[in-house]
Formats: sequence, C-alpha cells, structure tokens
Amino acid sequence: MNNSEDTTGQEHWKIPGDFQGHALPGSFLIFLSLWWNSVNILKYICKKQKQVYLYSKVWIHRAELLDGVILTGMVLFGAISLQIYAISGSQLMWVLRLHHTIIYTFYGILGVTKILSATINSFPASLTKLALSNAFLVQTFIMYNHTHGRFTMDVFLHKILALATFSAGLVSFMEILIKNNITLELMRASLIILQGTWLWQIGFVLYNPTGGFEWDLTDHRNNMFITIYFCWHYAFAYIIIGVNYAVITWLVKWRLRKLGFSQVPLLKTIVQEEESEEM
Amino acid sequence: MNNSEDTTGQEHWKIPGDFQGHALPGSFLIFLSLWWNSVNILKYICKKQKQVYLYSKVWIHRAELLDGVILTGMVLFGAISLQIYAISGSQLMWVLRLHHTIIYTFYGILGVTKILSATINSFPASLTKLALSNAFLVQTFIMYNHTHGRFTMDVFLHKILALATFSAGLVSFMEILIKNNITLELMRASLIILQGTWLWQIGFVLYNPTGGFEWDLTDHRNNMFITIYFCWHYAFAYIIIGVNYAVITWLVKWRLRKLGFSQVPLLKTIVQEEESEEM
Amino acid sequence: MNNSEDTTGQEHWKIPGDFQGHALPGSFLIFLSLWWNSVNILKYICKKQKQVYLYSKVWIHRAELLDGVILTGMVLFGAISLQIYAISGSQLMWVLRLHHTIIYTFYGILGVTKILSATINSFPASLTKLALSNAFLVQTFIMYNHTHGRFTMDVFLHKILALATFSAGLVSFMEILIKNNITLELMRASLIILQGTWLWQIGFVLYNPTGGFEWDLTDHRNNMFITIYFCWHYAFAYIIIGVNYAVITWLVKWRLRKLGFSQVPLLKTIVQEEESEEM
Amino acid sequence: MNNSEDTTGQEHWKIPGDFQGHALPGSFLIFLSLWWNSVNILKYICKKQKQVYLYSKVWIHRAELLDGVILTGMVLFGAISLQIYAISGSQLMWVLRLHHTIIYTFYGILGVTKILSATINSFPASLTKLALSNAFLVQTFIMYNHTHGRFTMDVFLHKILALATFSAGLVSFMEILIKNNITLELMRASLIILQGTWLWQIGFVLYNPTGGFEWDLTDHRNNMFITIYFCWHYAFAYIIIGVNYAVITWLVKWRLRKLGFSQVPLLKTIVQEEESEEM
Repeated sequence: MNNSEDTTGQEHWKIPGDFQGHALPGSFLIFLSLWWNSVNILKYICKKQKQVYLYSKVWIHRAELLDGVILTGMVLFGAISLQIYAISGSQLMWVLRLHHTIIYTFYGILGVTKILSATINSFPASLTKLALSNAFLVQTFIMYNHTHGRFTMDVFLHKILALATFSAGLVSFMEILIKNNITLELMRASLIILQGTWLWQIGFVLYNPTGGFEWDLTDHRNNMFITIYFCWHYAFAYIIIGVNYAVITWLVKWRLRKLGFSQVPLLKTIVQEEESEEM
Repeated sequence: MNNSEDTTGQEHWKIPGDFQGHALPGSFLIFLSLWWNSVNILKYICKKQKQVYLYSKVWIHRAELLDGVILTGMVLFGAISLQIYAISGSQLMWVLRLHHTIIYTFYGILGVTKILSATINSFPASLTKLALSNAFLVQTFIMYNHTHGRFTMDVFLHKILALATFSAGLVSFMEILIKNNITLELMRASLIILQGTWLWQIGFVLYNPTGGFEWDLTDHRNNMFITIYFCWHYAFAYIIIGVNYAVITWLVKWRLRKLGFSQVPLLKTIVQEEESEEM
Repeated sequence: MNNSEDTTGQEHWKIPGDFQGHALPGSFLIFLSLWWNSVNILKYICKKQKQVYLYSKVWIHRAELLDGVILTGMVLFGAISLQIYAISGSQLMWVLRLHHTIIYTFYGILGVTKILSATINSFPASLTKLALSNAFLVQTFIMYNHTHGRFTMDVFLHKILALATFSAGLVSFMEILIKNNITLELMRASLIILQGTWLWQIGFVLYNPTGGFEWDLTDHRNNMFITIYFCWHYAFAYIIIGVNYAVITWLVKWRLRKLGFSQVPLLKTIVQEEESEEM
Repeated sequence: MNNSEDTTGQEHWKIPGDFQGHALPGSFLIFLSLWWNSVNILKYICKKQKQVYLYSKVWIHRAELLDGVILTGMVLFGAISLQIYAISGSQLMWVLRLHHTIIYTFYGILGVTKILSATINSFPASLTKLALSNAFLVQTFIMYNHTHGRFTMDVFLHKILALATFSAGLVSFMEILIKNNITLELMRASLIILQGTWLWQIGFVLYNPTGGFEWDLTDHRNNMFITIYFCWHYAFAYIIIGVNYAVITWLVKWRLRKLGFSQVPLLKTIVQEEESEEM
C-alpha cells in the first residue's frame, strides 16, 4: 500500500492545490480541540468538588449539544466550499476532491452522533468516541492512499499528518474502553492541535501564500527538516494545552473563591499526594 | 512477506475466478453480522430493564445455539460448493482453493465452538470470542499471502479486505478481555458488514457478472478510486448498524408498552445523562 | 530491517544446518506447552470448586517449582548440545550459533526466574510472565535478523515462525496485566505448540532427514503452500488444546465423583449460563 | 518513511561525530533508570508494610522533587554542551544537531512536568508518565528519520535504538492506564538501561575512542553481530535490574529488623503464595 514509487523511475507531478483548502480544516481542528479540551478540564476540576459538579452539569450538557451543532455546521461549510472552490478539470483532481469529501463525511457522522447522543435517551455514550475514532482512522487511511505519484516531500508531509491522525484515532479508541481519563483527554487534545497546525504547515510548504521561500520538493534531505518542524509543532501543542489547563484551573478557583466555596490549597501537601495518585 | 513484485518486472497474470465465489461468503457475512448485531442490541436493551432480562434469557440462549448450527451449516455449504464449482486445472488454482478451504475450516471451528459453548457446562464463555478472533486473523494472514503475482489493483483489493478482517479480529480479541461492551459489539458488526459488502465489491470489480465496465487492473491510479469505495462501504455499514439499533430499540419499547412494563422516556434528561455515562 | 535483498541481485546461499537442531527445541516447546496448559486447566477447574482448590494448592505449587527445574535442565541440554554438534567452520556459522545461544540464554533466564518465583517470598509473581514474554520477543527479534542472504522460502519459513513467537510474546505480555484469564492461557498454549510443530516443519523442509521430496527454495510460489501448512499447524494446535481441555475436565470430574465431592452437571442450564459469562 | 536507499545506488557518507555525544546521554539514562528503579522498588516494598509506608512517604515525595530538578539540570547541561562542542560546518550537521536539541527539549519538558507535579496541587499525577512516554516516542520518531544517506550499519544501529525507545515509550504509556504495577516499572527500567548502554555501544562502534577495531560499516553481515550485541545488552540490563531489586529488598529487610518492625519471612510458603498472586 505504498504509493510513492521513487525507485521505479515513474513520473511525478506537482498537485495543483490551494492554501485555503489546508488552512480552513486546520483552523476548524484547532478550534474544536481547544473547545473540547476546555470542557474536559472543566469537567475534571468540577468533579473533584462534588457540590460544584451538580451545579455545572446543566452547562456541560448544553455545551455537548452546542458542540455537535457547531461541528456539523463547520463540516457543511467546509464540504460545500470544497465543492465550489476546489480546482477541477482533470480526473485526478476529481478523485482528490472525493478523498476530502469522504473525510468531511466522517466528521459529519461524528457531528450527527454527538447531537443524537446529547438528545436521545438510552444512546450508548461511548458511540461519540467511536465516531471520533472512526473519523481519525478513516482520515489516516485516506492520507496514506492520497499521495500517489507525488514528490518525496509532499508524500512525507502527508505521511506524518497520517501519523498524527492515527495516534489521535488510537487515543480516541482507548477512550471507548477507559472513560473520563484526563490524561488521555489531554493527549488527544494535543494531537488534534498538532493536526491543525500541521495542516497550516502543509499549506505553507506546498502553496506558500506569501510567495516567499520555495522548497525543493524532490530533495530527500528536506525530510529531515520537516521532522524537526513536526516535533516543534508537537511541543507547541503540548505547551498550549498546558497553558489552557493552568488558565482554566485558575479561573475556576478564582470564581469559586468569589462564590465562597470551600477552597482547595494550590500547593501540594504530602497527605493529598497519595489521593490524587490513586484516582 | 510482500508478494507483489511490481518493481522487479516479474510476470503478472489474471486469476480465473468467479463472481459467485465472492458473493456467497459476502452474503453469509452480512447475514451473520446483522443476526449477531440484533442479538447483541436486544441483550443490551433488555439488561437495562432487569425484569425483562430474566424473561428474555431463554430466548437469547436459544438464539446462541441456533447461531452455531446455522453458522456450521453455512460453512459446510460454502466449503462443499467451493470443492465442486471452483475452477481447477493448474497447480496455482489448487493452492488458491486450499486457501479458501482453510478460511472455511476456521469458520467451521467457530461454529463448533459456538455449539459446544451453548450446550456444555463449565465451557469458558470467551472461547467463542477467541475462535471468532482466530477466524478473522487467519483470514488476514491468508489474504496477505494470497495475491502472489497478481495485478496491482487485485492485490490492493485483497489488502484492504485484509485490513477489514484484521480490524475485526482485533476488536474480537478485545472482547475476550472486555466483555459485554456494546460499543465494541457495534464496531465489530460494522466491520463484518464491511467485509461482506467488500467481497461483493471485489466480485464486481474483478469478475463483473453484468459484463459492464472493465477496470484496468494494472493502473496504480485506480487504487485511489478503490480507497474511496472502501470508505463509502464503511460509512454504509455504519449507517446500517445505526438503523438496526434504532429499529430494535423502537420495537422493544413498543412491545413493552403493549405489555405494560414501566417505560423509559425517549429524550434524555440531565439526571439520567450521568448514569449512562458511568455505565 | 529487512535482510532479504531479492531485488538487488545479491548472492544467496544455502545454510548448512541439521534436522536435529530444529526438532530438539521444537519437542521441548511442545512438551512445555502441554505441561503448562495442563496445569493452567487444572487450576481453572479447581478454582471453580473452592474446597478442591485448597486441597490442590500444594500440588500446583510443587508443579511450578518442578517446571522451573525441568525448563532450566532442557535449556542447559539444548545449549550444550548446540555448542558440541553445531556445524562450524565459517564466520557466518559462528554468528548463527551465537543467535541460537542467545535464544537459549533468555529461556534460561525464564527458568531461573521460575525457580526464584517459586521459592523466594515477596517476589512479584508476574515477573515469570515478563521473562516469558521477553524470551519470545527476543526470539522474534533474532528470527527477524537471522536470515540475511538466504533463499526466499528459507526467509519466509523463519518470518512466519517470528509471527508465531511475536504473537506468543504479546499474549504473555498481556498476562502480566490480566491475570488468571483462562482464554489467554489457552491461546498462549496453542501458539507455543504452533512454534514447536513449526520448528519440526522447518527441519523437514530445509534438511529433510528422510531424504525425500526436495523443495525449490528459490520459488516464490512455494510460499503460498507454506502459508497453507502454517494454518494447518495452527488448526492442529488448536484441536490439541481442545482435546487436552476435554480430557483433563473429564478426569477431574471422574476423580471428584469417586471422592464424593458435590458434582457440577455437564450440560449447561440457563441459570448457570449467566454466571460463567460474568466470570 | 525509510531513509536508507540501499537499492537506488545513492551516495552514502560517514557522519562526522564524537564519542562523547553518545556517551554523555547514555550515562544520564543509565543513572536516571537506576534512580527511578530504586525509588519504585522502595515504594513497592514499603507499600507491602503499611506502617513503614506512612513513615517513608515524606522521603519518597522529596525524591520525586529532587528527581525533576536533577533531570532538568542534566538536560540543560547536555543541551548546552551540544551547542558548544558539536561539530558544525555543513548544513547537514546543523540539522542533525537540531534533531538532538529536540530530543533534549522533550526530556526538558519531562523535567519541568515532574517539578510541577511534585509542587502544584490538583495536577494529574499521570501527566509525568505522559511526558515520559512523549519523550521516548518523539525520540523514536527522530531516530527513525535521522539516518538519511548513512551506511547500512549506522542505520541499523540507530533503528534498533529506536526499537528500544519505542518499547520504553509504549510501556510508559501503559503506565498512564495501569498505575503502580511493579512489573511494568521494572520492564521500563530495563529498557532505559538498554538505551543507555546501547548509546555507549553506538559511540564505540562508530567513533571508537581507543582507536581500536574499525568496523566495515557497509557490510550487511555485520548487522547479524549487532543483533547479538543488542540481545546481550538487554540480558545485562535485565540482570542489573534483578540485582538492584535483590539488594534493595535485602537492605530494607535488614533496616527493618534493626528498627524492630514485624518481619516477613524470606522463603515462600504456600499460604502466602496466593496473596502475592492476586495483588
């Protein structure tokens, strides 16, 4: 299932594409990841304080419904603008557009599943996780079979995007089995941000909108630079999630202090350490 | 373990085969998947209502026994018709027929295990899951070593069938460790339907019975179309399972209402949300 | 990490070897697998009958100690006879002998761990599972890097042996995390028997002691036959384990009946079904 | 994502490098592994004796804080000396230095996470495991894309280092989900020691400081020797961990006897066996 026939002297071509087609889904993913991450952190902190949790349940439920609606809206917007603006003409471009349409379709299924899960009773809650995992794994499958006949660097850029989507799919799948684990949720969030920023990176490398530096897409050595960029993106995503966690924790504590709830000390003492570990 | 030597200029040949040989096991798999899926959903819904469960246990037990008998019958029918109708002559065709016979053998072992599990006491219940997982993984192994010397597209069609069987095998294996998880059961069902419809697809692509469109099996670019078809099949399987779930839920509720059992409201309220999540 | 350079026109050679060097460890593995399997089944059945378990504990403990001693003895015998009888001369043969010596070393570590685990208190019980998993995974690593410059079929024979050892290593690793799961134990037993019989098969294909049929080791198509043989071996291993399970269950029941213990009915009734499933 | 184009007749070059650049991080890893391993074993033994655990908690907490500080210090020292002493000049050397800098960065993130986890309250404890897993997996990713255009043996040496880091990353990831499992902790420790000693081995093979034996880096057959060395390293790491476990257990028992705590017998009796197994 390897489409990059470098060794057989086949012809390669530069795929006509556009920067916006990568930046738009990239922005969607970054937005969604921060949204989901914030809700997850809020839930985690509130659950630690039982009385607050009962109070915040209504808001979390509404957030989940809104989440599904926004996601479906995004997918519709992305899929329709893809049909209108995507460069067409050759049969190859038509196939590539279909590839993207399928990815949007599976995110659409995720959106519908989220809405159903938030409204219908007796709906197994982990089905949204299954739909999420499916969306990522189908995207990986598409990415892996998407780059037939392209230049070395183009193939490599999409292969490591597939690495990110595969990891996100795997973590989502684990969340079907292990529920409400904050570490898995944080990891998933960082992997989705990584996908989003990496889509921006692909847009900049292949179709630089500023018309600046032009990469030599046939040079194998450039892959070693791309490796570095990918790790920087991941470190960046990791730090964003960390800052988000810190800000939300601080906001909740500040709000609780104003409302007069019993306060948890910030610095760890030895007795509490054990509890948090057992959780 | 890669048998498709595209790069070494080896000879390729078109395997003589027939449409029926793919359509028959495909239909078997679709039928079995819907059957298992329906029983699983019924069990899941009934377990939520304790009193109904005790009442329906006898039926579920009988369904499991019947399941094993039907499966064994199917396997015998498939294996025997393979021996009678399969095109023979060359040594290669003989090897390929043996490959299919082995796959039928492992499904046969599954059938026997199911019958034993339903009749004999002190039989570990998860052995049927092990036999199921084995059947899928052995099929993957065969598929992967099945396409020596064939055309690019023929290889690709069988490789992504192997992807579906491997995923189904993996999910079945997980079910040995994590029992009665409805999400895993739904996922397995959708992967088995995917296998079934994909077998039909392979039949149509390689041995079109209507004599219509003829694919160029040597063109690498066709693999990108096949990728799209595979995802459509999966989306289709996913929706079939969803509709099946909805229909069965509605039927059970309708029947319970008639029998006067205490009724569960359809739309989710916030208090119930938490419970279903913890389950 | 692929050592079979078929495409680059490198030279290949037939490795001088002997039938005994494959048959001996094969027999050891088959013996050990049946031994471990029988102990596991005995433990499983006895645990279901609490009073019998307390009675049989002493015997199971002694079996574990004996197990370690026998395993260490086997390893010493195998390793020493390897040093004495292995064909030497070239540097390559020396390297290949070292490869086998390492495999014996890791099985030796397993034997020592078993003895320590059975004698020393406060020894984590799952360390024997770790040593077992290590032995299989190191063997996989060796097998994978063992066949440089050999003929196609020779490479394939060792690669699918590596598949069996890898699967056995994976299942053993899972047993570190999920303890006393009879299905995993049965699966591991069948995979070890598969290894043992496959070693016999390798011996027969490469160094046929009867001087009979000679395989053409350079023909890719033979790999499709070998695939069939491998599946037959697995089906055979599966059935052996099944028969072993049936015989031991019957023996225990017969012994208990004679000793006058309360008897469990053989055929399943609907009330009991649920319990065994929850276990 | 395979950078070793042996088949396409591309040019290869010997990378200028130094022995110290491999020995320094190797020593760091060996030190850290032994440190973490000793703390883990201490925790495991103390937990078995409840009264001792409460007494030792303060010390374990301090060890964790110190751990983070030392790790961060090591990373800073390594990264700075890399910037100063690394051979530069060509663009390739600059890329390779960046690769190493990224690895240090992720270990630095681990250090900071450890300090935060030991000081700040309401910090999810398993985040340090996530950072550890990330550090290893990012290192694997870098290693895998690090050896473009190098000699066969150089590539192989780094690929099996990547195997060790990947395994360590996987085990660390499992520790997010399964907490306080001594077997996983011992396994992780042995894999980190393996990495450390293997870095020394790479240094000796590629840039022998004693100016002794010079390896022919282009000979495929040398990979079979390297395979043997790698297994010896692993067996060595395994034994080191075993000796460490024995020494610490003996020291704790000796100390407890002097302090007059209730003593656990060394040799296993049959009644105790069952308990340790269930744990």
